[in-house]
Amino acid sequence: MSDFVFQNPTKIIFGKGKISLIGDEIKNNGYKKVLLLAGGGSIKKNGVYEQTIKSLDAAGIGWVESWGVKPNPELNKTNEAIRLAKKEEVDSILAVGGGSVIDTAKTIAAGYYVDDVWKCFEGTQNIDKALPIFTILTISATGTEMNCFAVLTKEEEHKKWHIDSHLLYPKVSILDPETQFTLPWNQTANGAIDALSHIMEFYFMGTKEETALALDESLMRTIIKVTDTLKNNPSDYEARSSLAWAATLALNGISGAMLHYGDWSTHTLEHGVSAFKTDVAHGTGLAILFPAWIAYCKDANLDTFKRWAKNVWNADSVEEGVLKMKAKYAEWETPISLTEIGVKEEDLEEIRNITINRFKKFGALKQLDGEDVLEILNLAL
Amino acid sequence: MSDFVFQNPTKIIFGKGKISLIGDEIKNNGYKKVLLLAGGGSIKKNGVYEQTIKSLDAAGIGWVESWGVKPNPELNKTNEAIRLAKKEEVDSILAVGGGSVIDTAKTIAAGYYVDDVWKCFEGTQNIDKALPIFTILTISATGTEMNCFAVLTKEEEHKKWHIDSHLLYPKVSILDPETQFTLPWNQTANGAIDALSHIMEFYFMGTKEETALALDESLMRTIIKVTDTLKNNPSDYEARSSLAWAATLALNGISGAMLHYGDWSTHTLEHGVSAFKTDVAHGTGLAILFPAWIAYCKDANLDTFKRWAKNVWNADSVEEGVLKMKAKYAEWETPISLTEIGVKEEDLEEIRNITINRFKKFGALKQLDGEDVLEILNLAL
Repeated sequence: MSDFVFQNPTKIIFGKGKISLIGDEIKNNGYKKVLLLAGGGSIKKNGVYEQTIKSLDAAGIGWVESWGVKPNPELNKTNEAIRLAKKEEVDSILAVGGGSVIDTAKTIAAGYYVDDVWKCFEGTQNIDKALPIFTILTISATGTEMNCFAVLTKEEEHKKWHIDSHLLYPKVSILDPETQFTLPWNQTANGAIDALSHIMEFYFMGTKEETALALDESLMRTIIKVTDTLKNNPSDYEARSSLAWAATLALNGISGAMLHYGDWSTHTLEHGVSAFKTDVAHGTGLAILFPAWIAYCKDANLDTFKRWAKNVWNADSVEEGVLKMKAKYAEWETPISLTEIGVKEEDLEEIRNITINRFKKFGALKQLDGEDVLEILNLAL
Repeated sequence: MSDFVFQNPTKIIFGKGKISLIGDEIKNNGYKKVLLLAGGGSIKKNGVYEQTIKSLDAAGIGWVESWGVKPNPELNKTNEAIRLAKKEEVDSILAVGGGSVIDTAKTIAAGYYVDDVWKCFEGTQNIDKALPIFTILTISATGTEMNCFAVLTKEEEHKKWHIDSHLLYPKVSILDPETQFTLPWNQTANGAIDALSHIMEFYFMGTKEETALALDESLMRTIIKVTDTLKNNPSDYEARSSLAWAATLALNGISGAMLHYGDWSTHTLEHGVSAFKTDVAHGTGLAILFPAWIAYCKDANLDTFKRWAKNVWNADSVEEGVLKMKAKYAEWETPISLTEIGVKEEDLEEIRNITINRFKKFGALKQLDGEDVLEILNLAL
């Protein structure tokens, strides 16, 4: 078992109709003018935007809007929002959307106080201050609503990198599962796969950490079960709620406590793939790469991989567990090979190069270098 | 599913040798002089006291000591410590011990700023301020190291009541599982039963909250499994760690999220029993009363009781689940009847009266009055 520190200050407000509380939460924390950050406009269709501004208005909170954050959020768009935040002298940020919007909000929060926020990603600029962040989550997936991480892509250099700082925990995150009733199915499935993948990044590091391993198995089984329910009935409130809370727990420190801070190779591999092909959803990239990573690395901790196969997939071997996982992802209509998303064998070297453009070696359970990356990409082809 | 708010600011530092960090943690939070609160002296035998004062000394933190907190902590002792804290003008409290010591620290923290702290328990005095609390946990059981509750007994009036306030979350709690290697077996067992009981108080409120129910089942199964391990080998570090972290998760908000804030009847019943008989450990009281409460209340949410029997005890009926639980507690050498702890049939009316001396009716799943209390006590005889 590894020693650990757990501290997570984010306040989660969970339930029907809770968006109406956002204005008072911002006011009670002492802030007056937010940058309201959003994506492509779905929040105008499902009523979330209207509920949000009504609440801000009622609490006397001013706001300026910035729209257009895309999946795999990009540096140029983020810099534009940072300039707006500075010009408008906002004192806080309100992200209304999914993981990309919230990650961008975190980057803006840090970027507000530095000249070039990309230096924070490169590690040549400390994050000493950040604007306070409030969020209204509309897609359960990344867990960013209750953690201190943000991922950003610098498109022209094929770099999809991350920052983390305790200053980036949202002050308050509101989760109303009803707002996810109208999500397209592939977004629900990608979110579920993302959450499963976060848990697996921690889980496979374990050996005898019974509390952590059993808790993580319960979360994985639950995510599979309730996602199946949502495939048939996207408006099942109980299933939406369970998926939402499980996705938050998957990356808020609870699933990872005791487990050596995780492996994270598959995320590095996925950031390589989606920096090469920016239209690939993070969850889809993980669905394709995790089976290949497991096949390649299982001998590094075989008993735990066997335990996972048995307790999560009711399978008698790791191989059978992987097959069942791939079958489930396919049943969820998610691509499970690089070929399906249009990657060709001749692209693999470039993806390999992108993957190791920050660190030549990575991974905790088994350290991977460029050659390993190429072998795993070939397995995922 | 019930709406919920989750926010827990406590910093947990978990692992071997971590007690050495306490001085710097207090210093970095800006405090200079602690009231060091402790129990009967076991921390002088197992090295915890020495590690603590060495760390305080190294960080330049001053301290004044108050010893002698007993299980089922008592108002008179607490008032004595409040007077000492005021006289010595400490700016913070460091509790070194188990749940009783930490609960007393919380009461002192609130009592420092009011004339009569018992009024906080009676609800006639608000808790508007509290000294900051730091803890070094030496018995995993109550979860008080990461929550906002404290229980205290006013012995002469047979009142065992509680307070709660967000000001009572410890700032920092240090858990070194090695310090529990030398615990007497009955304290380990009582701690495990206390943690199991906290989870059950939430669990039986559930119906379709899959994430919460599955997570709680994983915690219950884990506690049973690792406590069995500890019975044979009290120095099994992995099992100690798992029990410790599971006991924290059992009452830090994680096990209860979605579950309607719990039922808590069995705790009210237990506070009645141990206010009548103050030498009864809280875990023992719960071991005796929970089976009786389940038998009496199961029809109020039968499907969930059946699910508990199956998924926690591998039993085909609630009755079989209860039998297996009682057999396990007996195997752990814990009394499972009121008779075994010296309560006689003619005492039951007095215990009933004590139990309802604050609220005439209580309980969320099934509301209980004095007659119900008497029936449950008879079942537990």
